[in-house]
Amino acid sequence: MSVDYQSLAVKGVQALSPYQPGKPIEELARELGLNPEEIIKLASNENPLGPSEKAMAAARKALEESCLYPDGNGFALKQALVNRFGVAMNQITLGNGSNDVLEVIARCFAGPESEVVFSQYAFAVYPLVTQAIGAKGVSVPAKDWGHDLDAMAEAVNARTKLIFVANPNNPTGTVHTADAIEAFLQRIPEHVLVVLDEAYCEFLTGEEYPDGIQLLERFPNLIVCRTFSKAWGLAAMRVGYSISSPEIADVLNRVRQPFNVNSVALAAAAAVLEDDAYLNRSREVNEAGLRQLAEGFDRIGLSFIPSVGNFIAVDVGEQSAAVYQALLARGVIVRPVAGYGMPNHLRVSVGLPDENERFLSALSEALTSAQEGR
Amino acid sequence: MSVDYQSLAVKGVQALSPYQPGKPIEELARELGLNPEEIIKLASNENPLGPSEKAMAAARKALEESCLYPDGNGFALKQALVNRFGVAMNQITLGNGSNDVLEVIARCFAGPESEVVFSQYAFAVYPLVTQAIGAKGVSVPAKDWGHDLDAMAEAVNARTKLIFVANPNNPTGTVHTADAIEAFLQRIPEHVLVVLDEAYCEFLTGEEYPDGIQLLERFPNLIVCRTFSKAWGLAAMRVGYSISSPEIADVLNRVRQPFNVNSVALAAAAAVLEDDAYLNRSREVNEAGLRQLAEGFDRIGLSFIPSVGNFIAVDVGEQSAAVYQALLARGVIVRPVAGYGMPNHLRVSVGLPDENERFLSALSEALTSAQEGR
Repeated sequence: MSVDYQSLAVKGVQALSPYQPGKPIEELARELGLNPEEIIKLASNENPLGPSEKAMAAARKALEESCLYPDGNGFALKQALVNRFGVAMNQITLGNGSNDVLEVIARCFAGPESEVVFSQYAFAVYPLVTQAIGAKGVSVPAKDWGHDLDAMAEAVNARTKLIFVANPNNPTGTVHTADAIEAFLQRIPEHVLVVLDEAYCEFLTGEEYPDGIQLLERFPNLIVCRTFSKAWGLAAMRVGYSISSPEIADVLNRVRQPFNVNSVALAAAAAVLEDDAYLNRSREVNEAGLRQLAEGFDRIGLSFIPSVGNFIAVDVGEQSAAVYQALLARGVIVRPVAGYGMPNHLRVSVGLPDENERFLSALSEALTSAQEGR
Repeated sequence: MSVDYQSLAVKGVQALSPYQPGKPIEELARELGLNPEEIIKLASNENPLGPSEKAMAAARKALEESCLYPDGNGFALKQALVNRFGVAMNQITLGNGSNDVLEVIARCFAGPESEVVFSQYAFAVYPLVTQAIGAKGVSVPAKDWGHDLDAMAEAVNARTKLIFVANPNNPTGTVHTADAIEAFLQRIPEHVLVVLDEAYCEFLTGEEYPDGIQLLERFPNLIVCRTFSKAWGLAAMRVGYSISSPEIADVLNRVRQPFNVNSVALAAAAAVLEDDAYLNRSREVNEAGLRQLAEGFDRIGLSFIPSVGNFIAVDVGEQSAAVYQALLARGVIVRPVAGYGMPNHLRVSVGLPDENERFLSALSEALTSAQEGR
């Protein structure tokens, strides 16, 4: 081939390494010749409960209209969000997962001359979307594994267009109180947009934590992003959304793809929003699982980062890659986070009680086998 | 609000008018107080057959895993594409509809300094994705409503990065032969990428038409895009794909969102690819419907653009907006194409025989009522 097509890509894209998702069960089964049913995946912060029956009933009904384009305006889902959160319909932007919304925000408001601020150890998609548009990512060193909000505020300069704040943060599970987030927002100039990524907020229970939607009225530069992939149990569907001022939502809605959310996803998400029993069970299973994992790590003698999400980053030492492989060989998929600059940690998602137990026992074995170089 | 947030958007986005989709049935029902069951929508080139039963069985099964993220690599669907088309897996890029693939291509290979060439009356998404990235769109005047391929080749200059060619074209239904497309490709420099958008290619039956995939070996700068939204009957699902050289696919796969296609969509698309009976029925219904509509227009005395797609653009004269409204009032949704620079045409999708008949009779009434200003 006489032309190097990779060299024709725009600059940011040329240097891009794509997002590394958790290993799918089917892939591991193919690679190791295992039965997929014997594999447990605690790698992608998925809801271990299985989907809401109400959501699935709505999804099956939506399948009947598979020949028709989705409602590009997502009327029914937006109405369900309006009912639940008391926002106006024109404050909502729907996305193909919150990943889509995060990317659209970056593409709308930042460009090659811009800087985008985020925290060390924050969600991998922030630097990726920043790089894809050719903007400069400013990674602010973390404090105790969490966002150093003061340092992030100080990182803002004349070129800063956007700040991503994950609360709770993935993959560390750290969180800031409402007071801390408000104090931070007060320090940010109004012309700099703050994306408060609340993908895991449904797992928060304490009164001290912020509800981003409540802050919108006082901070017009705020965009709150949420997802149906975690506590709502619809990761397969790809639905996320942002709530912002109508002015910002209008810009985002111009750039998102006209049919970015599929019809089955729209129907399932609208239905699950009315299934409070499901959400409550998700929370209960998660709280119990966080305790179970923490106690297990204590028993084994591993330190971990206390988490409010549906996952825990545990420190397995310098041999973490070997421990990860040894877990895979035992049919347990967790997530390496070396790509996040956390080479000694593995991130494990909260599973059902027996999954957590199986993981903990596989981990004990894996630690031994990794030490022995087996 | 002291800050004008719209003015903070990047330049291309500030001037963007979003894609105008066909009016959804539910929306018209809400607006006119009609029963949704009494409305027919021939506005979005959807398959009137209803979905493939094989696809739906696969979709229902996939719903069981709604809590899990999709396979970001789309292994099973890519395998089905490999089986059907004899391409290699690493030539495939999956998208959330082919819209997603078209956008990713533009974002990867064009930027603010670039020019992107497309035809007058071509698919609205080409200028939209071009504008969103701040590139300059070059719209080449059409010839007999179709692409003027010679003029498009002549429009290429040192800044041209990308050419979009729709074959067949939407909304005009025009098509070029294999000879014409090959002659065009021979004129394009190797470092300029040509996107051959074959969204409607499954409706082509004659030997004289090109199969883009067969051209890839000879033209390494070619990217062929296709969709499951038309002949395959899965518009609700949002699945499209491109086939290109592995080098180009590698770039595209870096920039697409890691989980851009939902699990139900992946399963349905893989299953429908093996349902040749469904595809054949789609083609038969479409051929019969094209004839039925053409005969109807002849009877009414309206001229139309002969089409090889699953739609026809019919010339209803200067009162087309009134005719469109009069059709809506009769529960028939078609597509105005004034936004394509075709103010006198309406585009109607091929429906089932009784839908086509109902449309034709509503059209006769609508023409009279529009003339009378009713």
